[in-house]
Amino acid sequence: MSCRQINQLLGLEAFFKCEHLQTTGSFKFRGASHAVCLLEHTCRGVATHSSGNHGAALARAARDRGIMAHIVMPETAVKAKIQAVRDFGGQVHFCAPDQRSREAGLARLIEQGFEPVPPYEDDRIIAGQGTCALELLKQVPDLDVIVAPVGGGGLLAGTALAAQTGERSVRIIGVEPAGADDTARSLRAGRRIEDHHPETIADGLRALVGQRNLDIIAEHVERIILVDDPQIIQAMSVLWSLLKQVVEPSGAVALAGIMKERESFAGTRVGIVLSGGNLDLAPMLETLK
Amino acid sequence: MSCRQINQLLGLEAFFKCEHLQTTGSFKFRGASHAVCLLEHTCRGVATHSSGNHGAALARAARDRGIMAHIVMPETAVKAKIQAVRDFGGQVHFCAPDQRSREAGLARLIEQGFEPVPPYEDDRIIAGQGTCALELLKQVPDLDVIVAPVGGGGLLAGTALAAQTGERSVRIIGVEPAGADDTARSLRAGRRIEDHHPETIADGLRALVGQRNLDIIAEHVERIILVDDPQIIQAMSVLWSLLKQVVEPSGAVALAGIMKERESFAGTRVGIVLSGGNLDLAPMLETLK
Repeated sequence: MSCRQINQLLGLEAFFKCEHLQTTGSFKFRGASHAVCLLEHTCRGVATHSSGNHGAALARAARDRGIMAHIVMPETAVKAKIQAVRDFGGQVHFCAPDQRSREAGLARLIEQGFEPVPPYEDDRIIAGQGTCALELLKQVPDLDVIVAPVGGGGLLAGTALAAQTGERSVRIIGVEPAGADDTARSLRAGRRIEDHHPETIADGLRALVGQRNLDIIAEHVERIILVDDPQIIQAMSVLWSLLKQVVEPSGAVALAGIMKERESFAGTRVGIVLSGGNLDLAPMLETLK
Repeated sequence: MSCRQINQLLGLEAFFKCEHLQTTGSFKFRGASHAVCLLEHTCRGVATHSSGNHGAALARAARDRGIMAHIVMPETAVKAKIQAVRDFGGQVHFCAPDQRSREAGLARLIEQGFEPVPPYEDDRIIAGQGTCALELLKQVPDLDVIVAPVGGGGLLAGTALAAQTGERSVRIIGVEPAGADDTARSLRAGRRIEDHHPETIADGLRALVGQRNLDIIAEHVERIILVDDPQIIQAMSVLWSLLKQVVEPSGAVALAGIMKERESFAGTRVGIVLSGGNLDLAPMLETLK
């Protein structure tokens, strides 16, 4: 999608890759369906931990294959995302909202014999997420730069790898919530920082970046822009009011980064990944009454 | 646009005509640009009354032609719609929020020499709005029925006339807010009811149906379904959460009618006009903070 008003507002040419319109409402279905299609045919079920979008995607991919999906989710997950996992036939296992509890919950499921399909630190997942940029570059071959959000790093790493496959070079920039800036800090430190206490409205980007993902990002991503929650909400407002698209906070993060560092994007052709569109709308629609 | 989840939910095949993505965010640009392109080249400016969407469309069409647009708007108009008129270079003249005040305001502008471009009771406008259904029928030729909202009746009358031009017959159904049910009452009475005190969240559908529009509707529209505000908000919720599209209350009215009388649409291929997407998002985004 593109939008003249947004181009005029920002002084650039924006090409939005609409992953909020993807099956299950986020890019996560790309990696999940790729991983599931590579499973041995003896696999009787899969398991993962997820703030929601990977969980729903994996539940849907597993259902398509006729196997069970078990999803460890933080108790604080967005209600719409919990519901989506259940709607796609997945079984939800709640845990405390921190990285350690997520991983412990997943470990228990693996012990029970379920095949782990990690949310981001996995070659099958990174390759699947990379198809988003592959498609975007096919649709708009002469992009100068692609901007994608970073949480666990599957999307950003996949985007960076996909960009290597083209004939023309395209810059890759990541945007990360300032309240979950583990990737930016890790890149600065030259090693993965594990001290991580995410606090951001972008619930899909709270995970700790994967080591594998970080290595790819360090090699191929130009830089990481940090954005705070008001900047994320401001970007959502632009997407909702001008593009008329329901994008979740995490999905607006890439645009928030561009709006924050607008001068550096002036006059460029920018691919912007709108990574998802799943959020609790009930409190919003309540304001209409 | 179409959406498997909505089709499954409603037991039909829905094809959404996305007029919220139209220039100026509603179908109104179709009629306004058509009327403006037919003006004498001596015309020095245009005037109209509008709850907002026709005003923004006319302002934009006038600006493209290099003339001024004066828009009489109710003081209670949606802020985003007032801003849109101004953004497109139109001049806003406020009036009391009733039909008489709107018409009086417009009469004064006509006296000053501006060319009236009425919001709906006008052959140029009706023909322009009809291009929406013409396009939809080209995109999805084998529709059984097209459902459109009715306020002043320009869109519904244009839709009904457009449907006559095809080789295949397609049923046309209108949906009207129960709190602004002048068209339904007029059709029942066999004459245009002028006693009209609209009270509905669908601000774009509060105008009194035009006589010309009513005549066309009476001849070519199968029936009018009435929906109340909670039903409209419920339809918005489906469009926002599953189609991921920002549709304003008036724009969700057609789907609300289908959801209300779901059984009568079962198994059909339905064209649904999402007529606009302009609404005040600030209070909604405030709930995220």
